[in-house]
Formats: sequence, C-alpha cells, structure tokens
Amino acid sequence: MRVVCAPDKLRGSLDAAQAAAALAAGVRAAGGTPVEHPLADGGEGSRHTVQTACGGAVVDVDSVDALGRPATTRFGRLDEGTAVVEAAEAIGWDAPATAEHDVMRASSAGLAAPILAAVRQGARRIVVFLGGTVTMDGGTGLLASLGAQILDADGKPLAGSGADLNRIHFVDLAPARRALAGVELVAAADVLSPLFGPDGAAHVFGPQKGATPAAVELLDDGLRRLAPLLGAGSAAGGGAAGGLGAALLALGAELVPGAALVRRLTRFDERLATADLCLTAEGKVDAGTDAGKTVAAVVSACADAAVPCVVLGGTVTPEADRLYERGATAVLPIGAGPRDLDTALRHAADDLTRTAYAVCRLATAQLRRQDARV
Amino acid sequence: MRVVCAPDKLRGSLDAAQAAAALAAGVRAAGGTPVEHPLADGGEGSRHTVQTACGGAVVDVDSVDALGRPATTRFGRLDEGTAVVEAAEAIGWDAPATAEHDVMRASSAGLAAPILAAVRQGARRIVVFLGGTVTMDGGTGLLASLGAQILDADGKPLAGSGADLNRIHFVDLAPARRALAGVELVAAADVLSPLFGPDGAAHVFGPQKGATPAAVELLDDGLRRLAPLLGAGSAAGGGAAGGLGAALLALGAELVPGAALVRRLTRFDERLATADLCLTAEGKVDAGTDAGKTVAAVVSACADAAVPCVVLGGTVTPEADRLYERGATAVLPIGAGPRDLDTALRHAADDLTRTAYAVCRLATAQLRRQDARV
Repeated sequence: MRVVCAPDKLRGSLDAAQAAAALAAGVRAAGGTPVEHPLADGGEGSRHTVQTACGGAVVDVDSVDALGRPATTRFGRLDEGTAVVEAAEAIGWDAPATAEHDVMRASSAGLAAPILAAVRQGARRIVVFLGGTVTMDGGTGLLASLGAQILDADGKPLAGSGADLNRIHFVDLAPARRALAGVELVAAADVLSPLFGPDGAAHVFGPQKGATPAAVELLDDGLRRLAPLLGAGSAAGGGAAGGLGAALLALGAELVPGAALVRRLTRFDERLATADLCLTAEGKVDAGTDAGKTVAAVVSACADAAVPCVVLGGTVTPEADRLYERGATAVLPIGAGPRDLDTALRHAADDLTRTAYAVCRLATAQLRRQDARV
Repeated sequence: MRVVCAPDKLRGSLDAAQAAAALAAGVRAAGGTPVEHPLADGGEGSRHTVQTACGGAVVDVDSVDALGRPATTRFGRLDEGTAVVEAAEAIGWDAPATAEHDVMRASSAGLAAPILAAVRQGARRIVVFLGGTVTMDGGTGLLASLGAQILDADGKPLAGSGADLNRIHFVDLAPARRALAGVELVAAADVLSPLFGPDGAAHVFGPQKGATPAAVELLDDGLRRLAPLLGAGSAAGGGAAGGLGAALLALGAELVPGAALVRRLTRFDERLATADLCLTAEGKVDAGTDAGKTVAAVVSACADAAVPCVVLGGTVTPEADRLYERGATAVLPIGAGPRDLDTALRHAADDLTRTAYAVCRLATAQLRRQDARV
C-alpha cells in the first residue's frame, strides 16, 4: 500500500517535513510504503517546504530586517527560471527585529533585496510567499525599495512604514515596474483579507503584530488612503502580510491561494496518481482548515484523484466536519487522552506515528479481507 | 457493512449500553449497519449488560447491605435455568452503605439472599459476578449466611466481617454446600489477585475500599489465616471482591475470567460471524486492558473470527500496543484535543460517535476502492 504523507506544519511542535517523517514512520511500521510530501499554505516555512519537494539552490542575500538593520535573507532557485521568496524569511517573526518590534516603524523594504537578486540571476518568474511578516506598511517599503516614488504632501519621498501611511499623497509605481520588467510575479497568500476595512489587514492582523487599538485605527485609515493610490481596491488577499498582497497586485502580480500554489509547485497531484491512501495533518483542524489551508487543499486534491484521504489533527473541532463535505474519508484526532497543550505538543510526533500506524492497519485489513472474499 | 459495536463501559461517563449506542450512531451516519452488543468484564454492570443482550426477568430480593441494614437487591433469570447475580448490586459501592462505609465492619452476607432466592426459583446454574464490592471479609459473611459454621476459638459463631477474620478458628462448609446442592456455581472475576499476600485482596484493593495501612496488614493477616480453612490456597482470582472469589471456590464454584464469560453468555462470537468490522471501546486503554478486560476479550474473539477490530479509548497509553500483538487492527484515541478530564468525560458519547463515523468511512472507502479495481 502506497501512502502519501502530506501534512502541513503542526504549529508549536513540528514543521511539515518533521510531521511527514512522523507519519511515514507509522506507515512503514504498518507495512505500507510511505511517500513523504510535506506541504504549506503560503505562510512561514513555505519556501523550505517547496524546496524540500523540488530541490534547487538556496541563495543568500544581504538585506535589512523589518526595522532596517542589516540582515541576511535568501531566495530559492527552482528549475525553469522560477525563484521563490518568502516574506517571513526577510521581514518575519523569526527575523532579528522581533525583540524590539514596533509595528508602526516596521517596513517591508527588506523584501526588495531577495526579489531584485533573483531578477539579476535571471529569474523569469518569482513566487513570493506572503504571510508571517511583522509589517503593516501596505507594502510601501517594498515598493519604495524597488524604485517606486512615494511622496508626501510636500513632495518629499517616504521610505514606507506603518507610520508613514497617512502622509502619502502620491505614488508612482513605474520605476518599480521597470525593475521587474519581463518577470512574472506570483504572490501566494494564506489569507483572504482585503487591504482595509473591518476584515482588513489592520483589524484582523494588527493586534497580533503588536498594534494597540488606536494604532489599528491609524493603520486602517492609512491603508484605506493607500488603496486608490495603488489601484488595488478591495481584492481578497490584498491584506496579506500587512498589505503586501495589494502592493504586489499593483505591480501586476497574480495573487493565488498559497496552499493551491504549493500543491502545484510540488506536483502533489502527480504524487497522488499512484497512491492508495493519503494522510494529511495539522495542529488544529477547525473551521479555518476549510478556508484555503493546506489540509483542505489536500482533501480536494484527493477527492479529484479518488484517493481516500485521512485528516489527522492535534485538535479536531466539530467544524472540521466541513472537510467531509469536501471529500475527506476520515478526520481523526491524534491525542492520546485528556492532557494539557504543552504535553500534547511534546508528543505530537509520536502521536502522529501511532495514529498513522492504526489508520494504515485498518485500511490494509479491509483490503486483505476483501481480497480473501474475492 | 455490518459493524458490531461491542464496548465496555467508559467509567465516569457512559455505561456499556450507552457507549454501544454512541458507536452505533457513528456507524449509521457512515452508512453502515450497526449491531449493538455492550459487554462487561464481570465487575459492576455485568448483570445488566448480560441481560441487555440475553433478556430474562429481573427478580427483586429482600436482603441486607454490606453494613447489615435492610436493602433490596436482585438477580436475573436467563433461560435454561441460569441465574445471574452481581455482587456489586448487593454489597457494592452503589449500595446504601457507601456513605458511612467501614471496610472492617463490611460483610458479604447480603449476597446470600439473591443466591438462595435463585436456588428456590429453580436455578440449576448460578453465575456470580464479582468485583465492585465494598467488603474485605474473605466471603465469610456469605458463607455464614449460606449456613456454614464459622467459629472463634471459644466455639462461638462469627457472622463474618473484615474485623472477624483474625478470630476465626474453625470453618465447616458442609451446611452451605448442602444449601447449594445440585447447583452449578460460576464465579466471574475481573481481577487475578490471590486471596492474600503482596498481590492479594487487602494490599491491592484495601486502600480503595478505605482501609488504612494498618487495616491492610490486619486484613491481609486475616485472609492468610482463612485460606487453609477454606482450602482455597493461592488461586488467581481468589482475592476478587474482597476474597469472595476464594469463598466461592471453596463452595465448588468454577472461577472464570469475567470478560470471557460475558462474551460466552451473550453469544458474542455468533454476532461476529457475519460482521465486517467490530468496534470496541473503554475509558482508558492501557496495560490493564490486556489483562483479562473486556476489550482484550473482544480483540481475541475478533482475531479468532478474522474480523477487523478497532479499539477506541478516551485515553490510549503506549502499553495499549500489546493489543496489536493480540490481533487488534487499530487502536485509536477519541479525544478531540488537549483538554481536562472532566471535559473529556462530558464529550465521550459525541467523541465515540465521531470516531466510529471516521473509522467506518475509512473502512468503507478502502472496500469501495478495491471494488472499483476488481
């Protein structure tokens, strides 16, 4: 029995590759043949996950972090002229800025260096994974660093930050567009938020980025002011990564759901073609799981390929039932019993292995029984 | 798909019949045909569980509780002259004695009335489910109430209690044997403890019955003194129900593992013959599960019948792996994620239903897939 192990990360305990390895151990113990295929939804870890599946060089790039201090970031070079850049690796939570984080000062400028480096090295297509940034500057830092003119009422250039948003009076994107001429831009979002408004970047993601209620209002006003200057409107995903989605759209990028893109880039559907079973997993399987996340993408791909798909979760809420409507075969929790979250996180790998083992044995037993009857 | 739902109780949340109904709901939702077959291991709830499967009248009997106060207990009348008596229903935790419980004063005398009533009503075979009593009198209360002579050093009769044990000098079982002449006695134990010693009734079960460390020593001495007088030796199960196992052995009873007996009485193996899958469950699947408990008996029966068997548990410890050696197809937890025990107990029925649903969908999906290929 060939079993594709295609989990997302289990936040707080395992990255996607570790989760895939844990599932594979259970499959192997049950006599199955595991195929490890870690996935991601476009957020943190997406570049690494894609390169785990696709290979390709990783190129280090000198840049600045979200607070403008010198930092090293990277991009990945896939085949056929495609480069992958992860915003979280340049201006994300793991960047050195975190400790003295300030969402009003934070800038997406640091994302320009890896993009421009990829262009210089001949990339004809650049995938930018959004999500996981500490910024809320509507992508103005990136735009300015790519050469766009962003001016205040006095015609003075602004470098781009959350605090600058309400001072912007004029934007000329042409220089930035020229810098990326001939390059296909693909922005992969893991959220559907628009740039501004009650469901926009500031209101939904501001608080978790450290914005006070007053700062949230200020940032939302600024992003609303920015929207017509970018010609970005209220596209879903424009609010991804503090408005980077809208900025990339304004540069002509295609904005796609991250989970679907990772599925395509890693050729997940080809992996499924010869599979007997697929196991996927994430930390918490809930209502959000059905809204464009990795696990939902896996379930849909399996439904298309008529491969049974079992979803495993550290936590499984009743809303996870929606995955059945999408075509999931089974949704099962992995936790061994009543316990606290820390204990659960510590045991995640072992729990994945045990549950994968049980699931594969059950699948195999039914097949054996059927064989015996036929 | 015909799915036998054969759980034990989930202590603290569901009795076996409720657990079977919860599993059946999941099976039904997945399009399977459930067959509810609640089981027990010989402890509390065993009579009720057996009669749920086998039917038969329930006969109320006037008796006394473990502290000698008037109480009503009962026995069940199965077909073919078999009666079932549950010690826990006469002298158990749920009997009125519990509140002012005193393990030294407690007596098994109250178990005599339902046994004698069953004999009077023509029972030729009496099954006594041990386990769940509050007594530690080595069964002397029962023996005395059945007519046995139990005398102290001065030749004065003792009524039988934990406190009396060290005063016993002489036992004549003949009158008790005469009272049960022609009746086949079967004692069903849910534990393997011998009458006395470090693994004996007093040391293992005394503390949970309220015995202080000093009382445990006193009781163990008394049971050790009783053993040769009963001719009971160190048989496994002699320590069941505070030594009732040894007393019934002395009366010529066959002592059998309760789970296996319930399996036989309820004709569980016949139910399995046409099953495609069997689901069993208990509250905590651990090392003890493999030692003669219901779930282990179900796994063995399924292995004999070549029916895939999935074991579900509120808690599943690593020691539950032994069930795989016994032939279990899969062992899975039902809990939806990290949480406290109370929450888990409250959600047990729903969790069983959800997990049964997922398991049946997985089993069916594999069968469908195989059908499509054949």
